[in-house]
Amino acid sequence: MVLYFKKEPFLPGKLYMTLSQRSLSVGIAGLGTVGGGVLRILRDNADIVAAHAGRPITVTAVSARDKTRDRGVKLDGMRWHDDPVALAGDSGVDVVVELIGGSEAPARPLVMAALRAGKPVVTANKALLARHGVELAAAAENGGATLGFEAAVAGGIPVIKTLREGLAANRIRRVAGILNGTCNYILTSMQERGSEFADVLAEAQKLGYAEADPSFDIDGVDAAHKLAILAALAFGRNVDFDAVHIEGIRNVSALDIAFAKELGYRIKLLGIARRTEAGIESRVHPCMVPQNSPLARVDGVYNAVVAEGDFVGRVMLEGRGAGAGPTASAVVADLIDVARGRAAPV
Amino acid sequence: MVLYFKKEPFLPGKLYMTLSQRSLSVGIAGLGTVGGGVLRILRDNADIVAAHAGRPITVTAVSARDKTRDRGVKLDGMRWHDDPVALAGDSGVDVVVELIGGSEAPARPLVMAALRAGKPVVTANKALLARHGVELAAAAENGGATLGFEAAVAGGIPVIKTLREGLAANRIRRVAGILNGTCNYILTSMQERGSEFADVLAEAQKLGYAEADPSFDIDGVDAAHKLAILAALAFGRNVDFDAVHIEGIRNVSALDIAFAKELGYRIKLLGIARRTEAGIESRVHPCMVPQNSPLARVDGVYNAVVAEGDFVGRVMLEGRGAGAGPTASAVVADLIDVARGRAAPV
Repeated sequence: MVLYFKKEPFLPGKLYMTLSQRSLSVGIAGLGTVGGGVLRILRDNADIVAAHAGRPITVTAVSARDKTRDRGVKLDGMRWHDDPVALAGDSGVDVVVELIGGSEAPARPLVMAALRAGKPVVTANKALLARHGVELAAAAENGGATLGFEAAVAGGIPVIKTLREGLAANRIRRVAGILNGTCNYILTSMQERGSEFADVLAEAQKLGYAEADPSFDIDGVDAAHKLAILAALAFGRNVDFDAVHIEGIRNVSALDIAFAKELGYRIKLLGIARRTEAGIESRVHPCMVPQNSPLARVDGVYNAVVAEGDFVGRVMLEGRGAGAGPTASAVVADLIDVARGRAAPV
Repeated sequence: MVLYFKKEPFLPGKLYMTLSQRSLSVGIAGLGTVGGGVLRILRDNADIVAAHAGRPITVTAVSARDKTRDRGVKLDGMRWHDDPVALAGDSGVDVVVELIGGSEAPARPLVMAALRAGKPVVTANKALLARHGVELAAAAENGGATLGFEAAVAGGIPVIKTLREGLAANRIRRVAGILNGTCNYILTSMQERGSEFADVLAEAQKLGYAEADPSFDIDGVDAAHKLAILAALAFGRNVDFDAVHIEGIRNVSALDIAFAKELGYRIKLLGIARRTEAGIESRVHPCMVPQNSPLARVDGVYNAVVAEGDFVGRVMLEGRGAGAGPTASAVVADLIDVARGRAAPV
């Protein structure tokens, strides 16, 4: 059989001391849910990460709002910066991980400063990408740096890598998906229990599956951001976010779902982008999905993305679209690509 | 939005004349169904391939049994070698694509000669990988060459890339899947029509979905080869192919399927590998799959692979597992990785 690793690499909890290359030094800005997940992966799976990366990946510096908060991971030996933008200029940081969120300061100046300095950036920040993607791409190109954003779409599912690399031989005709776990959880619960939207939303908020202000999710804006990123990759074009048709799930009633079910359908919030004669058509809205189609039974907080290529046909990827573990898994995958020098150009 | 390509790259049918890097020269051994598909992709999608690869990919030399056969693609300008092994020594060939099949000559000496010469190899040959993988890995390591085999498992679905790179931050607990399209087509048809195995097999043979000698597929050997490759990647260990438990679908009756259905199950031929206290357990056999589980409704010639990682959770990939287009899509994706210099080490 093919050996991926030449030796037996999985000595639990031990790091590869034999690896000759120096470690990749990471600076993390933002130590919330996802940041904590990244620290845990780099600690708990250090052996696997080092084997895949060809060298250890070490967090050397961090920045967050609260220095004293218990994150379940010790920050010993990591330089602390009160100002996250300082990570871009820290000579002990090879790559910046931006997990602050938001499309403006401090996330934007941090990412811009790092890229301009030729320092690779890994981010989960879809708002930043959606609002300032062209600016970021130019900064990355000019600085000769790479920008990884697998974690910005569909959590741990490698959809960005699949579109950029796995299906790179294909002319993509269509990309579509269930891109927002909050909406899918609400629609699934409404379907299963015959409940009304408002009741399920209130419950989801209690369980932490929906934000106190849920409009970004339930009005389809979050799904539209992700769709715009997927469409740009799938079709190799700039996507005008303002031209994306967006409709959320506020007006879906228990009766709609019951009628759809009687007709053999389920209601899902889909993002759909396709190549037409007139250009790229992108839209997010509730859809009637035939009960036996693959997307119909992607339930709860799961996400799924379907891509159709001219040679490969239909490929579907499914998995957890959010949460500390899946999102951090995507961030670390991007770091491994940086360590290997195989990160894709922006 | 983030731009993947800086300019508008999709001028249909035109190649990038502005690309400064010299093209990647490919030598293809074997011009059957998949080889013809590779030629068609590199012709029809030359613009997309060049944009993703950063430079054109050009077939400069070929070898096949029959020089005169009509493949729907002209071989003008490609050097012809009667002996495929000569491709390894052709100084006008940067990378060898091996699509001859079979675990011995001429596939094996060709791949070995190319790797020893430090020439990257892309192959769809799972029999070769299963029988001589350790030898190939050593040759690749010593020669400093890469060996791409995305096309060897699950056709166009990027499962190899997902395990090697997309989920590289995770300790994989389990990998499982529907890995043989012939078996899945037969089981799906038996289910849909209540037919017996022998009748559906005879029909599948007429339609070209099953070989004249179908034993390699229906006895589970093909699925076991693919499972062994997946397990080696997922768990980072050599997998002893002789230790894989293999049971095919010959003995599945219409009655079995009917009973399973009554109990809420479907019968699928699954390959399952998991990490246990005692080591890696790998097996291929017909399974009762709960009707509402994601694998249950992967029907017909579709393949699917499920991987479970400690941080990412469950990720499933689904698509066409065979055929000229999907398999050639995977071959060209590997060539693009070679052109970008981002092919993974063996």
